[in-house]
Amino acid sequence: MSSRGRRSQLAWEEGAGNARDRRLESSQIELQGSRGRGRGGSVATLVCEVGSYASQPANRFSFRAEGERSTEWRGPRIWVGRKADSTLPRQLKQSWLSLAEALPLVETLQLVEDEQISVFPSGVPWKKYSGEIDGLDVHIVVPGKDKTLGVDSVGTVPCSLLTYASAVALRPNLLINAGTAGGFQAKGANIGDVYVATEFANHDRRIPIPVFDKYGVGTIEATPTGNLIRDLKFKEGKLSTGNSLDMTLQDEEYIKANDATVKDMEGAAVAYVANMLAIPLISLKAVTDIVDDSKPTVEEFLKNMSMAASALSNAVPLVLKYVSGKTVADLHSS
Amino acid sequence: MSSRGRRSQLAWEEGAGNARDRRLESSQIELQGSRGRGRGGSVATLVCEVGSYASQPANRFSFRAEGERSTEWRGPRIWVGRKADSTLPRQLKQSWLSLAEALPLVETLQLVEDEQISVFPSGVPWKKYSGEIDGLDVHIVVPGKDKTLGVDSVGTVPCSLLTYASAVALRPNLLINAGTAGGFQAKGANIGDVYVATEFANHDRRIPIPVFDKYGVGTIEATPTGNLIRDLKFKEGKLSTGNSLDMTLQDEEYIKANDATVKDMEGAAVAYVANMLAIPLISLKAVTDIVDDSKPTVEEFLKNMSMAASALSNAVPLVLKYVSGKTVADLHSS
Repeated sequence: MSSRGRRSQLAWEEGAGNARDRRLESSQIELQGSRGRGRGGSVATLVCEVGSYASQPANRFSFRAEGERSTEWRGPRIWVGRKADSTLPRQLKQSWLSLAEALPLVETLQLVEDEQISVFPSGVPWKKYSGEIDGLDVHIVVPGKDKTLGVDSVGTVPCSLLTYASAVALRPNLLINAGTAGGFQAKGANIGDVYVATEFANHDRRIPIPVFDKYGVGTIEATPTGNLIRDLKFKEGKLSTGNSLDMTLQDEEYIKANDATVKDMEGAAVAYVANMLAIPLISLKAVTDIVDDSKPTVEEFLKNMSMAASALSNAVPLVLKYVSGKTVADLHSS
Repeated sequence: MSSRGRRSQLAWEEGAGNARDRRLESSQIELQGSRGRGRGGSVATLVCEVGSYASQPANRFSFRAEGERSTEWRGPRIWVGRKADSTLPRQLKQSWLSLAEALPLVETLQLVEDEQISVFPSGVPWKKYSGEIDGLDVHIVVPGKDKTLGVDSVGTVPCSLLTYASAVALRPNLLINAGTAGGFQAKGANIGDVYVATEFANHDRRIPIPVFDKYGVGTIEATPTGNLIRDLKFKEGKLSTGNSLDMTLQDEEYIKANDATVKDMEGAAVAYVANMLAIPLISLKAVTDIVDDSKPTVEEFLKNMSMAASALSNAVPLVLKYVSGKTVADLHSS
């Protein structure tokens, strides 16, 4: 159901001529408005538990046709290029506290917290860390702590809001949702595996009315990334999302119908927003617990959380290095 | 947990002097930045199934202190006043198709679809209808039809996104979430009743880890509106939200713990965003089905949907007329 892979492009920009050739090769007519002559691109990563986010600097690669109203935002375009032109304005920044789970990745990538000015409205607990990695402008955004209870803002609603707000503020070229998941050993999952989701669906939205039932499940195909999965030796599987850490009989029935190998609490909501705004998405899920064994999920989850954060801290830099200079089409063999 | 009632004010603006008196009376220091001398206010209403939304015109009541960066958005402020100054710029508008369930209310209020320019990014199915009601600028926003399946975009994720995007774009003074709900006859609910939610919680976010369990339930107190409830003869009760139309045993256990009289699929998500952005919220829920009887929920829901839409079409104009010229504090006897 997603056409993001076909509508988007991560382009290696060595100059206008080269970029134009690549556009012609892949018939990416939506990139024809680019004025990015000699300028580099960017990447950002979304971490709902642990993750990262990619965007382009403000006022670059706007792809606006002549005569368009400047107040109309036409959605993000996909562009991951080389070293950003340092003379261009940087993204706005704001002071934020760090989030424990994202810290290993923030430290690995040597990103810095934004300061003083937020790209988000006041009142939200969302945090952003930014830096330049492999010639890409990388932003890590996290939903932050619940202001009343002080725990991480997990689940579909905070993560979909963060995805939307970040997409609008940062206009990312590529979205990477790096997070944790439960895995099914019957499907081959082991603790510590990092999966790339090939399809997203929900298992806790039961609406037994014709067509609404399909809407509730909300299946979305992932941006195809077969080459990335093969070259970086990730596992691949379908992801099913629900707002609970446990699994009822009804959840299990839906998860089986969704043919899921991994189960999380955010992925399908991130994919919903990414699909709506036509942003390519790579969803990396590190397995913290095996759902279909006799060990209690909560104990396994807590015990393996830091290991999963570490696995993602290794995986995300590999993905950033891999996508740098490639088109979205390059991520998948046709 | 919500302090919206104390932090916000719906003010009757007859001029700066009068407005200042009201501010002093209620110690609403956040309104001291108002430059709205002689200008009127506005209201908008959010309809996730059927609803409405209130905002102020762009560049009005910005309450920005000197020296603040214009790029930092300080969140919406609460102001519902008299007839808007027609010389001020109107909200941006965009062409949208109508949504069946909201049409009775749109027609009752004689609102018009926005045209040409959207306040939302391209790709989203969200719709907005606007007009002036009782001296208030009223916007009805609806999440629209799923682009792939063509059914209404029900549930917490689309509605929270719409609430957030509308809040950022329209800076509403007051949010009204008008929608449908299942009612519990054990709590006194009957088909066709219109309830004002006094508290919001979730019943499908089970996270059995200390503190996370409370976060999952996510209880939020409503903006106090005792006077409105009494004067307009609404019923009042706690609302529990989940993404399914049916109710499992686990859902029922949580709904009982939430002490809910009504059950819906969006309310707590709207309240989450309103609370985060400090916007007062009135949640009107028309009962379409009795959950704790022997009749199938789906049949009752479909049969009574238009009746509920009609009940909300009556209720929302009464609420708009009632809040016009009042402060938030006026809505509740202290």
